[in-house]
Amino acid sequence: MSKNLTTRAEDYSKWYNELVVKADLAENSGVKGCMVIKPYGYAIWEKIQAELDRMFKETGHSNAYFPLFVPKSMFEAEEKNAEGFAKECAVVTHYRLQNDPDKPGKLRVDPNAKLEEELVVRPTSEAIIWSTYKKWIQSHRDLPLLINQWANVVRWEMRTRLFLRTAEFLWQEGHTAHATRTEAIEETEKMMNVYAEFAENFMAIPVVKGIKTANERFAGAEETYCIEALMQDGKALQAGTSHFLGQNFAKAFDVKFANAEGKLEHVWGTSWGVSTRLMGALIMTHSDDKGLVLPPNLAPTQVVIVPIHKTDEQLEAIDAVANDLVAQFRKLKISVKYDNRTTLKPGFKFNEYELKGVPVRIAIGPNDLENGTFEVARRDTLTKEVVAKDAVVKHIELLLEQIQDELFDKAFEYRNSHITEVSNFDEFKDVLENKGGFVSAHWDGTSETEEKIKDLTKATIRCIPLDRKEEAGRCVLTGKPSAGRVLFAKAY
Amino acid sequence: MSKNLTTRAEDYSKWYNELVVKADLAENSGVKGCMVIKPYGYAIWEKIQAELDRMFKETGHSNAYFPLFVPKSMFEAEEKNAEGFAKECAVVTHYRLQNDPDKPGKLRVDPNAKLEEELVVRPTSEAIIWSTYKKWIQSHRDLPLLINQWANVVRWEMRTRLFLRTAEFLWQEGHTAHATRTEAIEETEKMMNVYAEFAENFMAIPVVKGIKTANERFAGAEETYCIEALMQDGKALQAGTSHFLGQNFAKAFDVKFANAEGKLEHVWGTSWGVSTRLMGALIMTHSDDKGLVLPPNLAPTQVVIVPIHKTDEQLEAIDAVANDLVAQFRKLKISVKYDNRTTLKPGFKFNEYELKGVPVRIAIGPNDLENGTFEVARRDTLTKEVVAKDAVVKHIELLLEQIQDELFDKAFEYRNSHITEVSNFDEFKDVLENKGGFVSAHWDGTSETEEKIKDLTKATIRCIPLDRKEEAGRCVLTGKPSAGRVLFAKAY
Repeated sequence: MSKNLTTRAEDYSKWYNELVVKADLAENSGVKGCMVIKPYGYAIWEKIQAELDRMFKETGHSNAYFPLFVPKSMFEAEEKNAEGFAKECAVVTHYRLQNDPDKPGKLRVDPNAKLEEELVVRPTSEAIIWSTYKKWIQSHRDLPLLINQWANVVRWEMRTRLFLRTAEFLWQEGHTAHATRTEAIEETEKMMNVYAEFAENFMAIPVVKGIKTANERFAGAEETYCIEALMQDGKALQAGTSHFLGQNFAKAFDVKFANAEGKLEHVWGTSWGVSTRLMGALIMTHSDDKGLVLPPNLAPTQVVIVPIHKTDEQLEAIDAVANDLVAQFRKLKISVKYDNRTTLKPGFKFNEYELKGVPVRIAIGPNDLENGTFEVARRDTLTKEVVAKDAVVKHIELLLEQIQDELFDKAFEYRNSHITEVSNFDEFKDVLENKGGFVSAHWDGTSETEEKIKDLTKATIRCIPLDRKEEAGRCVLTGKPSAGRVLFAKAY
Repeated sequence: MSKNLTTRAEDYSKWYNELVVKADLAENSGVKGCMVIKPYGYAIWEKIQAELDRMFKETGHSNAYFPLFVPKSMFEAEEKNAEGFAKECAVVTHYRLQNDPDKPGKLRVDPNAKLEEELVVRPTSEAIIWSTYKKWIQSHRDLPLLINQWANVVRWEMRTRLFLRTAEFLWQEGHTAHATRTEAIEETEKMMNVYAEFAENFMAIPVVKGIKTANERFAGAEETYCIEALMQDGKALQAGTSHFLGQNFAKAFDVKFANAEGKLEHVWGTSWGVSTRLMGALIMTHSDDKGLVLPPNLAPTQVVIVPIHKTDEQLEAIDAVANDLVAQFRKLKISVKYDNRTTLKPGFKFNEYELKGVPVRIAIGPNDLENGTFEVARRDTLTKEVVAKDAVVKHIELLLEQIQDELFDKAFEYRNSHITEVSNFDEFKDVLENKGGFVSAHWDGTSETEEKIKDLTKATIRCIPLDRKEEAGRCVLTGKPSAGRVLFAKAY
């Protein structure tokens, strides 16, 4: 395995694929379109999970678990949802294999073990969950019902990419039921805000909050809110969605409640999710040609200590100092690793931790011990400084916060400098081709125009930003009137 | 919904089913054989997960995630494993649904979207994981490889029962690879011990550690270690297994490593797992006719405070005292709930928390405020005592530990008094029919005898206890020589 990655300038897509594998995040499996999430990648996902789970619980949600399979008749019940996912779903038709009479040692599906009704492997769980909510909801006292599920889902994608688009992926899906339209919309917006806060404060990924157009809306929703991030190659990435389902699923599954006056009404629903796709966003927001760059919040190892020595005696002296440092960091709940493997050279270790994005590296050599100083290196800026021994723990505690903040600031500046307002279609195409990023343009509000622009440029409307200003204008393609700008981009 | 459960004496099986549903732990779903784990049940599962995950990491294991699907050819590779699971696996054959031309609004599998190779929904992940380990392991420096996965698996069971036997269930599965046979056996035993420690210290479930007979061994293993628990109806329940896989999977998937001398050898494997079945063991070990009894370690709410009041003023006074208590408990990381819902009577609340197994209940009425005392009730013993206000927090902190210990002691005594040594087959049948529990008997070591006894009595050999004493004897059925007793029981 070559140590060096393809650079972003050479081939961005290749850089990404190599980084994911070489930094031990994930790899393709022997199952078409499905990935293996490797221990280092999974450790980052666990940090994402833990923080989101905390935030969901803090906002009143409980976890539960619903079946992997959706019987076909249940899957069909909400028509738009079914139509949206039918084209890409894995279907279980049999429940047994048997010895293949024609091929010794091989198995085949047992023709006598065909299911009466096919089972769809959940591409999303609205159907199975709303069929359950029918049993759980009778009265307004049962509402709101605020449930989240951590699960795997399957969408049969033909062109897959590690983390970004895989046939099976891991996610969480919130499914809530409410007595009123207003309350359901409030929940939808609240969870979009939870996602935005999480992306920005925890993952250091700036996002635009907005609403999807009808074309890009979740199948079965009345409105889809989203957070959109911008990758370093100028392409957008949808990092999370929150759907206002109206009464669509309540009607499809006959979920009614008796209101305070005893009158039966259909309940109002929401659903919202983020997935292992966030790992792709994380990688493509911060990383560089040396490998992964991790915000300290997400780093399984925040600080690594590497000894530089020639003799065993030197190593012993360094060991003592390093072990003391480790203990001090642990007290502060800073995750630290002292890598004193003697089979590997320091330079090899430096490369490895750069590739894996460990935010801070401390190198300790015999001279450092004499001088009472350490060399402290930052992964994000690739800069080094010399820090006095007694000050180093406090210094790094603050440095980790600083790195977290500066990674956000850097991504924020990049993102902001890549939102470009255009006033005609030539400009639109020019920005899209030569600069990338979000193109802020007037649009006449029709799906036809949206699709025409997509056909011509591959750009889609990422969202109608929630904070857009009202501004009369003319559609960039058709010249028809528009009430405000929307954000277009090529997207993952 | 009737408040009262069927009693255990009336119908143990019905008692169990009712309890699971009424205590909000789980229920059957619209998918045959698959359950919905309800929020309260899932909260207990989360506690199980968190503690086990901590123990796995402390013993050097990392989490990762492998695909849900196993291509048929990969599934076939380890023959015994394939044979063991082929009879009960869900098989994906198609990747798309389409509108059914004969039935408007209905879907059918798209005959043009048949997979080239069928995919088995994982019943266990050895095949997919060992096919990956082939890529990960080259040298002795890559060993040991210590990985765990939290996942859902599917085994197509015809007769299902909530938690105990469901078509889909949640579990963790550890999969490790080692350079030597000895090291792999050590790992197998270590993880059995981790499970035993967890079951006893955390779940308050006493277990027997032992080895399975060839008949009961995991398909593809050389040796299966297990922990066996005893339920209140005298039936045994396998609570966890740890398998020494020998080189079976390494050979099936061609996983070799270069040893220190550069010679290629097949690696040695283990796998080990516990599942949502543990929820069934938990329920059936501790609970009573009033409902669930939870060891404090597993209780999502450890203490509930219920106000007893007639007037709003009384409630206000109680609120102040209760909120202060809540704050004190939270400081001690004791999970507490103050239930001051005014729509429900105290008696209703008492029943609800008894049903749900909240370990300690504090009731506070106006008299208590005057006297400076509270009524403290224990769920496990259904006893009450009056405790001085200032002493109550400390009292309950100790009481929770005491309850945890006493639940174990009670189950331990029950279990020990239900291990009965027998010396002939009449006694064997008599104990099994009239007393239940483990029957400790000599066995001639053959699968034939084991199966004959199963046919005659429905009892299986639960395990060959690790701590059994060497004792020459005669097989209880055949009279042939035996080197020691094994434990028989009817089992879940």
